[in-house]
Amino acid sequence: MDIDSIVTTAHAMADAARAAVLPYFRSDNLSADNKADSGFDPVTAADRAAERAILAVLEAHRPDDALYGEEFGARPGTSGLTWVIDPVDGTRGFLSGTPTWGVLIALSDASGPVYGLIDQPYIGERFEGGLGRARLTGPQGERVLKARGDRPLAQSILFSTFPEIGSPEEGAAFGRVAGAVQLVRYGMDCYAYALLAAGQIDLVIEAGLQAYDIQAPIAVIEAAGGIVTDWQGRPAHAGGRVLAAAGREQHEAALALLASI
Amino acid sequence: MDIDSIVTTAHAMADAARAAVLPYFRSDNLSADNKADSGFDPVTAADRAAERAILAVLEAHRPDDALYGEEFGARPGTSGLTWVIDPVDGTRGFLSGTPTWGVLIALSDASGPVYGLIDQPYIGERFEGGLGRARLTGPQGERVLKARGDRPLAQSILFSTFPEIGSPEEGAAFGRVAGAVQLVRYGMDCYAYALLAAGQIDLVIEAGLQAYDIQAPIAVIEAAGGIVTDWQGRPAHAGGRVLAAAGREQHEAALALLASI
Repeated sequence: MDIDSIVTTAHAMADAARAAVLPYFRSDNLSADNKADSGFDPVTAADRAAERAILAVLEAHRPDDALYGEEFGARPGTSGLTWVIDPVDGTRGFLSGTPTWGVLIALSDASGPVYGLIDQPYIGERFEGGLGRARLTGPQGERVLKARGDRPLAQSILFSTFPEIGSPEEGAAFGRVAGAVQLVRYGMDCYAYALLAAGQIDLVIEAGLQAYDIQAPIAVIEAAGGIVTDWQGRPAHAGGRVLAAAGREQHEAALALLASI
Repeated sequence: MDIDSIVTTAHAMADAARAAVLPYFRSDNLSADNKADSGFDPVTAADRAAERAILAVLEAHRPDDALYGEEFGARPGTSGLTWVIDPVDGTRGFLSGTPTWGVLIALSDASGPVYGLIDQPYIGERFEGGLGRARLTGPQGERVLKARGDRPLAQSILFSTFPEIGSPEEGAAFGRVAGAVQLVRYGMDCYAYALLAAGQIDLVIEAGLQAYDIQAPIAVIEAAGGIVTDWQGRPAHAGGRVLAAAGREQHEAALALLASI
């Protein structure tokens, strides 16, 4: 792999997405479509503008790679490498004006994600992991990303996007972990994974994810020393039920409470 | 009132608090005390450093004003004006690394808050309202704060810090509103009030607040054209149960569902 080319391309994609998305953030002309007939799943013009910008970078820099993204489906490639992206992860947060949505950019080979970025354009923060990198650049400069390591559940901080997580059975499993930790917080979208990689929190539990929701977080968290699996301890890069942990102790303890589902 | 002096003092307080707090944010040496024997209510060194910094600005600029703050209690004054401040509102969010805590600075006379700032030091955002001002300064420059105005509940976005709000009766009342809106989001601490003033969301509902939690948000939201009362439609500047709304339509509809408590 040409690491320099990959890293340069990823940052160029994130820069292009920032420029494409920010004009729509907190603007008065947001257009929210309903992707599904039921429920509230807005897709904004920002999503599409960001994915077009990312696609243009790919075609200019690395046209042989494949692309898999939420809005545009799959673009085939010949390199054996696939960019897996969610141009605006956390569209409900985006529409609400919270600075906790993000641009997710991952590069995967046949084994799963090898490199990823979680970018928060409004704050100007970028969390990067994989290919020898584990760092945050943001308003306070650059720092190394390092998960906080082993800690008992009773001293752990758990994040999830919604208190109503998944099916009733999934909700009950989540509730077992929520009842065992020190603090549960909601509403951070993909920013929760970034906080875990930055050493701030211990656990993120979600259900019903897509591959593009989790591949960049996997790369960033694993580079920071954290662990991401599904609720049975298996690879999570296809999405579904996800458990991210800052250390083996939290991971095993949470898994024991989740896995009986 | 000497408006220039008040505004200059408030911004100097917020600047001093930013400088005092930021070294503690996402640092590895956070010390969290337990204020109460039961529950998890961390008070950090950041709280105390910020309040000391704010107090020093007050003594230098306007020593005749009173000060009422979370950590330092009440400092008497002779001007009839009181600064009501929470140096770090959202300490759980602060400890988790989320950029949604804030420095709350309000100036009140006998009638309640007349001016306020909600400052988010990490993002570098400051929401200002009262004494003829209603504006946001932040990463994208300056913009006017304007609540979004009337909207039916079924098209409204509601925020609260925790899904477990207050007593069982308070939780049930909150649940009636949550069940009637388009979208409910959690976890934004004082940032939710800022989003309401910025025209992004429709409702914030909380219970168990202190005066210093709500006086700055009241000033900012009212300056932006929004409404803040308790759950019976009365003034909320003493804290307790709070309903903030972006327009009269959301306010009256939410009040009808809350007021029977």
